[in-house]
Amino acid sequence: MRALPQPKPEDFDLATVLHALGDPVRLELLRRLTAEGETTCSPEGVTVPRSTLSNHWRILREAGITSTHISGKTRLVTLRRNELDARFPRLLGAVLDEFTHPSSPPPGASSDPISGGSRTVLRSR
Amino acid sequence: MRALPQPKPEDFDLATVLHALGDPVRLELLRRLTAEGETTCSPEGVTVPRSTLSNHWRILREAGITSTHISGKTRLVTLRRNELDARFPRLLGAVLDEFTHPSSPPPGASSDPISGGSRTVLRSR
Repeated sequence: MRALPQPKPEDFDLATVLHALGDPVRLELLRRLTAEGETTCSPEGVTVPRSTLSNHWRILREAGITSTHISGKTRLVTLRRNELDARFPRLLGAVLDEFTHPSSPPPGASSDPISGGSRTVLRSR
Repeated sequence: MRALPQPKPEDFDLATVLHALGDPVRLELLRRLTAEGETTCSPEGVTVPRSTLSNHWRILREAGITSTHISGKTRLVTLRRNELDARFPRLLGAVLDEFTHPSSPPPGASSDPISGGSRTVLRSR
């Protein structure tokens, strides 16, 4: 199993991490990763085009948020939670809070940015 | 004094807020706002082009992070800290932590993305 290139923790950059998180699809991928521990790069129920999804995964990986390991034809993505927490204490926790305890779900917030379902608390822009 | 349009707190969107924060110049504007309470839209020492700066302020305002009030020829920008904290508890605090207690300043982090000085802890991308 080999890993795709990713930044070292000492090279993490706050603006880059925030930019990577600042997209409804990438936030939904983060939510799934947090819930499931790891995911393939084409999680079940995801209906955005494969090339778009690859681009989202790349942005997350290059920001240091995820690791991608390749095993045969499978790409497995994991969250770099400990390294992120060490570099930016409380940041990921504050973002993940919104998934578990949305303080005030905005009106019309039921549209899932990925699958069109009604599960997510995120609003598609 | 009149205010430029801005979203209501119940319309704040996490992805939009994170995207607005995910830029080294906008993070530096946030740092100044936090330190100074309010600022004009052309803070001293800022050397990015005025139109670029206006665009950054617009992105921050439209995300709900700042308010802009116009008085004569002056535009004053303030941080909507209480409203942001109510909607996304701990998020802004986690971001602002990086300004006051950078856990691990990246190498070559001394370049100020706005003025080219050596004060900021942010790294220009």
